[in-house]
Amino acid sequence: MSAPRYLALCGGVGGAKLALGLSRALAPEALTIAVNNGDDFEHFGLSICPDLDTVTYALAGVDHPVQGWGRDRESWNAFSQLERLGGPAWFRLGDKDIGLHLARRVLLDEGFTLSETSARIARAFGIGHEIAPMTDGRVRTQLDTADGLMPFQHYFVRERCAPSVRGIQYAGAAQSQPSPALRRALDDPRLAGVILCPSNPYLSIDPILALPGVRDALRRLNAPVIAVAPIIGGAAIKGPTAQIMRDLGIPPSAAAVARHYGDLLDGYVTDAADAPAVAEALPELRLLACDIVMRTAEDKMRLARRCLDFISRLGARQ
Amino acid sequence: MSAPRYLALCGGVGGAKLALGLSRALAPEALTIAVNNGDDFEHFGLSICPDLDTVTYALAGVDHPVQGWGRDRESWNAFSQLERLGGPAWFRLGDKDIGLHLARRVLLDEGFTLSETSARIARAFGIGHEIAPMTDGRVRTQLDTADGLMPFQHYFVRERCAPSVRGIQYAGAAQSQPSPALRRALDDPRLAGVILCPSNPYLSIDPILALPGVRDALRRLNAPVIAVAPIIGGAAIKGPTAQIMRDLGIPPSAAAVARHYGDLLDGYVTDAADAPAVAEALPELRLLACDIVMRTAEDKMRLARRCLDFISRLGARQ
Repeated sequence: MSAPRYLALCGGVGGAKLALGLSRALAPEALTIAVNNGDDFEHFGLSICPDLDTVTYALAGVDHPVQGWGRDRESWNAFSQLERLGGPAWFRLGDKDIGLHLARRVLLDEGFTLSETSARIARAFGIGHEIAPMTDGRVRTQLDTADGLMPFQHYFVRERCAPSVRGIQYAGAAQSQPSPALRRALDDPRLAGVILCPSNPYLSIDPILALPGVRDALRRLNAPVIAVAPIIGGAAIKGPTAQIMRDLGIPPSAAAVARHYGDLLDGYVTDAADAPAVAEALPELRLLACDIVMRTAEDKMRLARRCLDFISRLGARQ
Repeated sequence: MSAPRYLALCGGVGGAKLALGLSRALAPEALTIAVNNGDDFEHFGLSICPDLDTVTYALAGVDHPVQGWGRDRESWNAFSQLERLGGPAWFRLGDKDIGLHLARRVLLDEGFTLSETSARIARAFGIGHEIAPMTDGRVRTQLDTADGLMPFQHYFVRERCAPSVRGIQYAGAAQSQPSPALRRALDDPRLAGVILCPSNPYLSIDPILALPGVRDALRRLNAPVIAVAPIIGGAAIKGPTAQIMRDLGIPPSAAAVARHYGDLLDGYVTDAADAPAVAEALPELRLLACDIVMRTAEDKMRLARRCLDFISRLGARQ
């Protein structure tokens, strides 16, 4: 029997942590990481791909240790100059980060797809595992807020999540296709499991699920689909998940996230304190209760291994 | 009588030196510097304007003291990253330089013209004198070489002037208009003189002269037009002027440059050693023989004052 393959769907920070853990636990050819790129936008003439870069920097070991985006040991000389010239400073790019964006601009201008561009950049960073955008099409997550419809980065970075969110749409998703890597992973008969990483369900995972065929492919899969809760005890581990859920009238809880994914899930990884509430709300859902906070490299690897073990046990029952 | 106004036409390094000298000798409202932008190109999704930036950095006092382009005390973190990712490194941009290019990209994307963009950037650098591109249109200097037709920067930076030049064309010049600042300066009844700075005549000054109406306006002018020789004793002070002249079958000399400008000139500023040959070749041309090498700030100011005095004397005779 050929070696099992895994597919991770993820967004930025939280997802990138588990993706890093999975990359340490699995051989390069055994893992595909499909990354939300509904948050991408054009700025300074550059293609900004926040989640793709966060995942790439994390797997390359050059991510900023605390801030959740950008590079470690970064300098800000370009941006200081931009600010001094009165340029817009709400979306910050460090010098090394700009270097990557210039490289991506050149590759895209040369006609490479975002998938090809991302693969080249990952290889140049010495990453063996496959990191792919969810799509080479153009999907733009837009938030319907009290201040009007706005692209995600405007809401998240420029407005610091201040406007109340009334709805979310993934513009262009219906007209886009899953990227070749995502499609290939979903169609691979060796696929042993899919992990929805602990990213924002509405902003990071749903855009991927909104691509034609992805939700159906996950439902039809002969392998388990699991998710890791992005919420512990009513608070998002990182980012605006809890606030957006409250804005949408959904009590922010691990159980509510599981209910949101609904019948896509075969299993759910949650904090022990949240497990009783999840079990009560979704009695049929298989649960793994464990410590899901990932602070250290060991935490990430340990949680990745527990997810893979969980998938293995779920798979044996299917 | 209202205060006299001056117009300087210039390219990069040599021209920027005299432009700086003129800016120290003249009040802000008395000088317009119209800069060649036939060397501009798009790279990394950014608008690269080599001569405009060289002049702006020089007048702001933040230019690199030796290399003839870019910023002083520059860092290279973005470009190092770009190179590590396999990006094209033939046209180098330092971090602070990239900051200016990001600011320009944003302004151009917001719909400002290159003239407006350049004026805003100059003001942000505290420059009071008017620095304007020769045109807001799209002129592209192209070299017809033994290796084919190529844009100037490819010839100059990427190919390091290796291909032999057979001809030069200013694509788009006939369809473009002089920038508002250049037009205004030429039409100003207070215009007391025009200085063709010691820039490459073929690559820096001719593109400006190729714009509709500029050559005629200079010919019809009631004020003197002078040029400062970019060549001393058969060698260009900086850049590929002498080599291009040899490629074109023109002996590189101060006299040949004066002959090239022809009846546009009322006066010519040249090194004392070259004056006899110029006088022999163009007996009717009024000459100012002096030290035209500009090494220090004092050299630049001194040559600028000599040019203005020369114009004043020529004007009194007209």
